[in-house]
Amino acid sequence: MEKYDALIFGHKNPDTDSICASLVQEKYNKNNGWNTKAVRLGNINKETEYVLKYLGIDAPKLINEVADGQDVILVDHNAFAQSVNNIENAHIQMVVDHHRISNFETKEPLYYIAKPYGCTCTILFEEFKNANMKIEKKEALLMLSAIVSDTLLFKSPTCTKYDVEAAKELGKIAEVDVQTYGLDMLKAGTDLSDFSPSELINIDSKEFVTGNYKFQVAQINVTSIEDVLENKSSIEKAMENFMTENGTNLFIFLITDILNNDSQSIVLGDTKLFEKAFGQTVENNMALLEGVVSRKKQIVPVILEALEKMGN
Amino acid sequence: MEKYDALIFGHKNPDTDSICASLVQEKYNKNNGWNTKAVRLGNINKETEYVLKYLGIDAPKLINEVADGQDVILVDHNAFAQSVNNIENAHIQMVVDHHRISNFETKEPLYYIAKPYGCTCTILFEEFKNANMKIEKKEALLMLSAIVSDTLLFKSPTCTKYDVEAAKELGKIAEVDVQTYGLDMLKAGTDLSDFSPSELINIDSKEFVTGNYKFQVAQINVTSIEDVLENKSSIEKAMENFMTENGTNLFIFLITDILNNDSQSIVLGDTKLFEKAFGQTVENNMALLEGVVSRKKQIVPVILEALEKMGN
Repeated sequence: MEKYDALIFGHKNPDTDSICASLVQEKYNKNNGWNTKAVRLGNINKETEYVLKYLGIDAPKLINEVADGQDVILVDHNAFAQSVNNIENAHIQMVVDHHRISNFETKEPLYYIAKPYGCTCTILFEEFKNANMKIEKKEALLMLSAIVSDTLLFKSPTCTKYDVEAAKELGKIAEVDVQTYGLDMLKAGTDLSDFSPSELINIDSKEFVTGNYKFQVAQINVTSIEDVLENKSSIEKAMENFMTENGTNLFIFLITDILNNDSQSIVLGDTKLFEKAFGQTVENNMALLEGVVSRKKQIVPVILEALEKMGN
Repeated sequence: MEKYDALIFGHKNPDTDSICASLVQEKYNKNNGWNTKAVRLGNINKETEYVLKYLGIDAPKLINEVADGQDVILVDHNAFAQSVNNIENAHIQMVVDHHRISNFETKEPLYYIAKPYGCTCTILFEEFKNANMKIEKKEALLMLSAIVSDTLLFKSPTCTKYDVEAAKELGKIAEVDVQTYGLDMLKAGTDLSDFSPSELINIDSKEFVTGNYKFQVAQINVTSIEDVLENKSSIEKAMENFMTENGTNLFIFLITDILNNDSQSIVLGDTKLFEKAFGQTVENNMALLEGVVSRKKQIVPVILEALEKMGN
C-alpha cells in the first residue's frame, strides 16, 4: 500500500456514518496537509452504496487488520471490540466519535473529539466551521447522508439540534432537498433481497462487553417488518451459530420500521435479562419495541443498567 | 451547596493546571450560560497558591466525593484512579484533558476534548479561540500559569509549539513578562519547608493501574536536590507506609531540579522493573535520571512498556 501518515476507519460492519466520516476526515486532513487514507473494516451496505453511487465515487479499501505501531484515526467508534484487528498494538493518533467511551485505552496522549450528537459527521461539520474551512459539495453530501442515516431523518431520539442545523446547511451546499434525498437513501438501505440470513444479522451488528458478559445488538432498517419475519427461523439459526462461535450471552436483532419508527426484536440467549431490562415478555423469541429506533440510546444503556442491577 | 449544572475538577493532588483549568472552564461555561462550579480534590500547592494570591482570588472549594448521578466535568485527567471518589456513579458530561486515556469509561455519550499538548489550559485557550470568545486578564494569567507549570517554562519534552504560542499570547493579555513571572511562580512552588515527609510525597502524586500492578509516581520541583535528600530516610518511611496502605508495587519519587532539568529519583518496591525500564542501577534506593522532567512522557510510558515486556 502507498505510504500514508495514518489510516482512518469507522467500526466493523460499517454503516453510512462510518464510511462517510472516514472519507470526510481524510479530506479535512488533506486540507491541513496531512496525508492520511480512509479505509473500511467490512462490506458496504446498500444505503451507503446509494450514497457512493450518487457521488460516483469508490468505496474506501477494505482492510482486516493493522500492523503493530500503525498510525490510525478512529471515527464513529472507540471500543476495541468494534475496531480493527490488532488495534491494541496500533498507535491511535486521533478519535472522532459520538458514542460512550468504553473498552478503550491508549499508551500515549492523543486527539480525541467526542460530542453527544446523533452523528459523527455533525462533529466533523463543526470542525470544518471551527477551522474556517470551505465545505465542498461532495463532502457536504457525505456528511448529510451520514446524519440522515444515523438519525433516521431526524426521527431518532439520538438526534440533536446540532444534527438538524448541520443537515440543513449541508443540504444547501449539496444542492439536494433533504427530505426527498434522505428518504430515497433510507429506502435504498431497506433493500435486503441480496442478503443471506447470516449476512443480514451482520449488516450493522455491534458487540458490547462488560466484565465477562457479551451481548450483541444487530439492526436492520426496513419498510416491512413482515417481509423479514418470513425468514425468521433461518435468521434465528444464523443468530444461534453466531452466539456459539463468539460466546455471546444475549443477541438482540432489531428490525426497525423506518416509516413507523417501531422495532420488532428477535431475542436469543439470556432472554430473562432482556425481559427485566425492558419489562416486556419475549414470546416466540420476539418482542415488539414500540417507538424504539436507536440502539445507542434505547437499547444499550437499558441492557447495561439491567446488567448492573443483576451485579454483573 | 448551591445548585449547579455540573461540578468541574482536576485530578487528586491537584497541580496548577488542574486548579487553573477548572477555573477557566467554569468561566468558559458561564460565558455560554452554563452554570457550573469549579471545585478541587486536594490541597493547593505553593506554586498554585502563588498564582491565586497574584490574582487575589480564592481557591475552589474542596470536595472528597460526589453523589450518585452528580453531573461532573473532568479537566486535566480521565483515569478514575486519579479522580473523585464515587466517580464510577457520577454522570460525566465532559472531559478536557491532555493525557492518554485509560481506566476510563462512561455509560453515555459525552463531550471529550483531548489534544496531545503540554497543558490542558492550551486546549482551553484554543476553545476560547474557536468560540471567538474574549479572554479576560484573569483567565489569561490562569492559563499562562498552568502552561508554565506543566512545561517547566517550556523546557519539558511534553511542551508543544501550541503551548508556546498560547503562552506568548496569554502573556500579552495578562500583561506580564512570561520569563520573569514564570520563574517566580516556579520558584514559589519549590518552597517545601512547610511539608512533612508524608505530605511531600503527596504534593503531586499519581497512581497508575495496569492489570493487577499498581505503581505510583510522585514529583516535586526544587532548586536544590541536596536539601531534600537531607530528609531521605523520613521520605522513604513515608513512601513505605503509603505502599503498605495502598498495595503499591513500585513507588518512584522524582525530585526535579527546575534549573538544571534533571531528576533524582527515590525508588522503592519493584526496583528490578525500574532498572529494566531505565537501564540504570538503583543504588541506596536512588537513581539519577538526567534530562528527565516529565512524568507523563519520560516515566509512565517507560514503565508501561517494561511491564508489557514482562507480560503484565
